[in-house]
Amino acid sequence: MAIYDLIIIGGGSSAFSAAMYAGRLKLKTLVICEKRGGTLVLTNDISNWPGIKKTDGLTLTKQIEDHALEYGIEVMDKKVTSAKKSGEHFLVSTDDGRFESKTLIFATGTEVRKLGVKGEEEFTGKGVHFCALCDGFFYKGKTIAVIGGSDSAAKEALLLTQWANKVYVIARTTLHPEPVNAERIKASDKIEVINGTTLREVFGEKKVTGVVLDKPYTGSNRLALDGIFVEIGRTANSDLAKSLGVELNQKGEIKITRDSSTNVIGIYAAGDVTDTKFKQAITGSAEGVHAAYSAYEFLNKKK
Amino acid sequence: MAIYDLIIIGGGSSAFSAAMYAGRLKLKTLVICEKRGGTLVLTNDISNWPGIKKTDGLTLTKQIEDHALEYGIEVMDKKVTSAKKSGEHFLVSTDDGRFESKTLIFATGTEVRKLGVKGEEEFTGKGVHFCALCDGFFYKGKTIAVIGGSDSAAKEALLLTQWANKVYVIARTTLHPEPVNAERIKASDKIEVINGTTLREVFGEKKVTGVVLDKPYTGSNRLALDGIFVEIGRTANSDLAKSLGVELNQKGEIKITRDSSTNVIGIYAAGDVTDTKFKQAITGSAEGVHAAYSAYEFLNKKK
Repeated sequence: MAIYDLIIIGGGSSAFSAAMYAGRLKLKTLVICEKRGGTLVLTNDISNWPGIKKTDGLTLTKQIEDHALEYGIEVMDKKVTSAKKSGEHFLVSTDDGRFESKTLIFATGTEVRKLGVKGEEEFTGKGVHFCALCDGFFYKGKTIAVIGGSDSAAKEALLLTQWANKVYVIARTTLHPEPVNAERIKASDKIEVINGTTLREVFGEKKVTGVVLDKPYTGSNRLALDGIFVEIGRTANSDLAKSLGVELNQKGEIKITRDSSTNVIGIYAAGDVTDTKFKQAITGSAEGVHAAYSAYEFLNKKK
Repeated sequence: MAIYDLIIIGGGSSAFSAAMYAGRLKLKTLVICEKRGGTLVLTNDISNWPGIKKTDGLTLTKQIEDHALEYGIEVMDKKVTSAKKSGEHFLVSTDDGRFESKTLIFATGTEVRKLGVKGEEEFTGKGVHFCALCDGFFYKGKTIAVIGGSDSAAKEALLLTQWANKVYVIARTTLHPEPVNAERIKASDKIEVINGTTLREVFGEKKVTGVVLDKPYTGSNRLALDGIFVEIGRTANSDLAKSLGVELNQKGEIKITRDSSTNVIGIYAAGDVTDTKFKQAITGSAEGVHAAYSAYEFLNKKK
């Protein structure tokens, strides 16, 4: 079995930025990912990647992936089932087999968080959705709601106005987007924000027909809707890292230093899975670069 | 006098990445820089900016600058002569006047380091150069040397083979480039590396005709050359920051945290001027983004 210098777990922009540098640094590198592109592919309007005024997640992540592939790295499209320490090395397993590496980078990103209310699971895919870009298209001329108060929720709502006639934003406290998006929300005649309100239940028959709120809105606790898009945050995919003794913060995010090291020697992390406060595509990408360089330095010192 | 939310001192990719985010975050932002583009414009071969397989410094920095200008930031092409604290604000002076701001970002970059040997100053611009991209063109068919041992020195040498017939690399200890560049150096029949050798003097008449080495190479301490390119590192432009009480490390670089804060409240830093170990365009850009967001958060908390 060939021993890799570096296995990168994850397939988003942080993972492939790390892979690109690892390839340039001539590390024998394997990227293992369940799907390519990460959560960025769910975004169709990216205007904050320095130097690109406007692009979309699919295009940007493909560019970074293609760039990495220039440098002879290997990619395996598989789910990692376990990761273990073996002497000074690491053993990473998939359904296809086990792979040995001297270092690891976790760029495993996040999963969407669910509401946990009655009807959510029953109607998932039948009026309950978690990605406006993926499913918004089906709501042409309809009335829908985004559940959440973050900038991401605001962006989902703005995106959905492309198709829906009416988009409510239901925020438990208040909707608090970035100022540019706050202005765009204000300027939209399709968006109506309902602050200080919690969703209690999703109801319908074959498909969603409405939701129950914790307090009345325009006279009733029941709001008629054709669908909802849940955008209440994400949880870090850090279980594998944790199983290797990697330290997490209270949110379950991997604690890293400025050079993307974790507390475990030879293990690094980058992107949305880390404890970085302000998480952007560009900051995750830079963390990937730091992680690759730290792995390179670690391997050089061992020689 | 209008009070700015943020003044960014510097004109490179880190500065304008910060400016782009500051503009998106609706901060009233002024960028003050002596020249636009920073040291990146001296590089004609950039292949490590994630997502772009090949570009040059001028193109990349212009793209980032243009992106920032989309968001209504102001730019002043002036040298900053002093920066002072004034109550809770900062006063930044140029020959044109004084500007007040609630926060500052230093993205002031670096200056080239000189050898300090006899003849270096006398022949600067007449055979002694500090930028291959700027002056390499004049050495078509000539014999020249790059002085330095870093990856940057290796890249300068590789670039110079486009024009020169023969390029020596004179390294005090050993030439230690990134592996990709090590291979390219090895593959070049124009480059000859002289390790463990220090340059003592540059001599000539109207122009450089040769250099004196501290030990003989192929039988003589004197090496006939048409020109030299000095690439022995850079010093951080941190004097202004220091005058405001910003803490520096032993190299004179600004100490920052993971969110690009310095020890002085309201002052942030990004890019080559900071104490980041592995300095790349992408990592400086991400630091600029963190700095802008930290300034934004600080201003929001004050409200």
